[in-house]
Amino acid sequence: MKVWAHVDISEADRERLRRGIEQAGGEWIERTEVEGKGPTIAYGQPPVDVMLRTGTLRWIQVDTAGFERYDREDVRDWLRAGGRQMTNSSHVYADPCAEHVVAMIFSLARQLPRAGEIQRGDRSWPMMALRADSFLLRGQSAVLLGYGAIGERVAELLAPLGMRLTGYRRRPTGDEPIPMVDAQGLGRACAEADHVINLLPASPSTEKFCDRAFFQGLRRGSRFYNIGRGKTVDQEALLEALVEGPLAAAFLDVTDPEPLPPDHPLWTLPNCFLTPHTAGGHHRERDCHLVHFLDNFGRFQRGEPLRDLILRERP
Amino acid sequence: MKVWAHVDISEADRERLRRGIEQAGGEWIERTEVEGKGPTIAYGQPPVDVMLRTGTLRWIQVDTAGFERYDREDVRDWLRAGGRQMTNSSHVYADPCAEHVVAMIFSLARQLPRAGEIQRGDRSWPMMALRADSFLLRGQSAVLLGYGAIGERVAELLAPLGMRLTGYRRRPTGDEPIPMVDAQGLGRACAEADHVINLLPASPSTEKFCDRAFFQGLRRGSRFYNIGRGKTVDQEALLEALVEGPLAAAFLDVTDPEPLPPDHPLWTLPNCFLTPHTAGGHHRERDCHLVHFLDNFGRFQRGEPLRDLILRERP
Repeated sequence: MKVWAHVDISEADRERLRRGIEQAGGEWIERTEVEGKGPTIAYGQPPVDVMLRTGTLRWIQVDTAGFERYDREDVRDWLRAGGRQMTNSSHVYADPCAEHVVAMIFSLARQLPRAGEIQRGDRSWPMMALRADSFLLRGQSAVLLGYGAIGERVAELLAPLGMRLTGYRRRPTGDEPIPMVDAQGLGRACAEADHVINLLPASPSTEKFCDRAFFQGLRRGSRFYNIGRGKTVDQEALLEALVEGPLAAAFLDVTDPEPLPPDHPLWTLPNCFLTPHTAGGHHRERDCHLVHFLDNFGRFQRGEPLRDLILRERP
Repeated sequence: MKVWAHVDISEADRERLRRGIEQAGGEWIERTEVEGKGPTIAYGQPPVDVMLRTGTLRWIQVDTAGFERYDREDVRDWLRAGGRQMTNSSHVYADPCAEHVVAMIFSLARQLPRAGEIQRGDRSWPMMALRADSFLLRGQSAVLLGYGAIGERVAELLAPLGMRLTGYRRRPTGDEPIPMVDAQGLGRACAEADHVINLLPASPSTEKFCDRAFFQGLRRGSRFYNIGRGKTVDQEALLEALVEGPLAAAFLDVTDPEPLPPDHPLWTLPNCFLTPHTAGGHHRERDCHLVHFLDNFGRFQRGEPLRDLILRERP
């Protein structure tokens, strides 16, 4: 089974991927040599135009969680017409993304960013002030905007805190392990939440999902986190909510644009904290990609359902 | 039942404590007016000399987790001779202390302190470097030095990560929910641990418990956290372990002395992070103290076992 590997990774990682694919019975096709080779599978980030004219493809797995560049009507048509499947790498990112946003939540509750500023600043010891501004997470409430592999893992990690968790999905399936709302119930859930955790992917339907009305409807003193995509947020509205309320603080891993320009006001607000799009990363990331791809490769060979299917429904 | 309240808190908090005690059937005795009043109970931080000559006392609850000033042979004798009980406020601190050290653990794994330095520094966007230095907590290993109310809560919070946890106690009881070691098994457990979490109280037996041999026996690249007491650590040995190995990083809430002098080298090491003894604090701390004291007061009145008993065994 021919696998067209269109990946942008180190030479060592390429060799391990190639060896893994070959050991699993696949035939490796170089990214630049796909024309005329008739691959059944594509892996990585195949260019849309080349992909669409490679009619032999039956399954395409992208090696990211985001798939904006493939979220187009012609790609959906091509998948549907040919009975093709497309998957992303959500489950590779579930652990690191969930651990990242949970780190942000704990970190704000315990005032760690302020302690860091003091350490790199005047090295004072404002024990009583920081204690008074710390708060217990146990028993608080949170809304998860978007509920897939990452949201599920976030809910697992937060479980021992006994928080009241609510998930938001456009179309809840009813078998999620936490209470869910759709667009109709979202406003009320957010108005009562101590924490709002944005996990939304980028798509036409999520662009500026968090707009001015959204932010102004949040609970006074609540906290907002974004490890989804920067474009899902109206940053002017976020700024306003941080400066004038109702937000007490925000911790963002994604912005619009990225990198965030050094003169952007989000860098210097005292209640806004940033990480440079690091939520999905970790030092064994490539190993996890290989495991995930080979797992799906085995499923594909055996005709079993693939994990992390995308672009199945209308946008 | 007369309650001698020797507390150093705000006027508003005093009034709420007083009202709570009186509603529970207690009689409030001012801290300065104890002589000749014959109180049965003392609460707060009663001076040792006055306490020892107040023979009517049957139960003393200190409003801290630490109780160094009472950990003396004459106090132990006085408790034992009079069939008296002493308690601390461990359970008040279990939640905030556990959430604090878990915040430290997640924060280091996700490189949040470095992201904070960048934000307050050159506002660059070193995405790939920070991703490569992040690591997954899932499946790692940790040793808890000291295992009481706080350790139990730390273990609960870390449970969803599927970490291999080992607790250290001088005398394991055998009914702890995680595997335990005593002094004999500690070296081996620490040599294999990715994280060593110091929760030890100060006492003659824990002074410089973490000495040079201890630090040099840790796993290369491991991380050390201290929310116990500063005196349990040989800080010169800690410094050496941070500069020359084996430690990758340390996150400390307690030091010796406190405040840590601004010119102390722990402030400026790139792999050492500090909070100013804030682990136990939060904005509803006094409410939790009141609830905890009144819970024990009810138990005492009904002759039931008290929570957080201390100084029962030989040091």
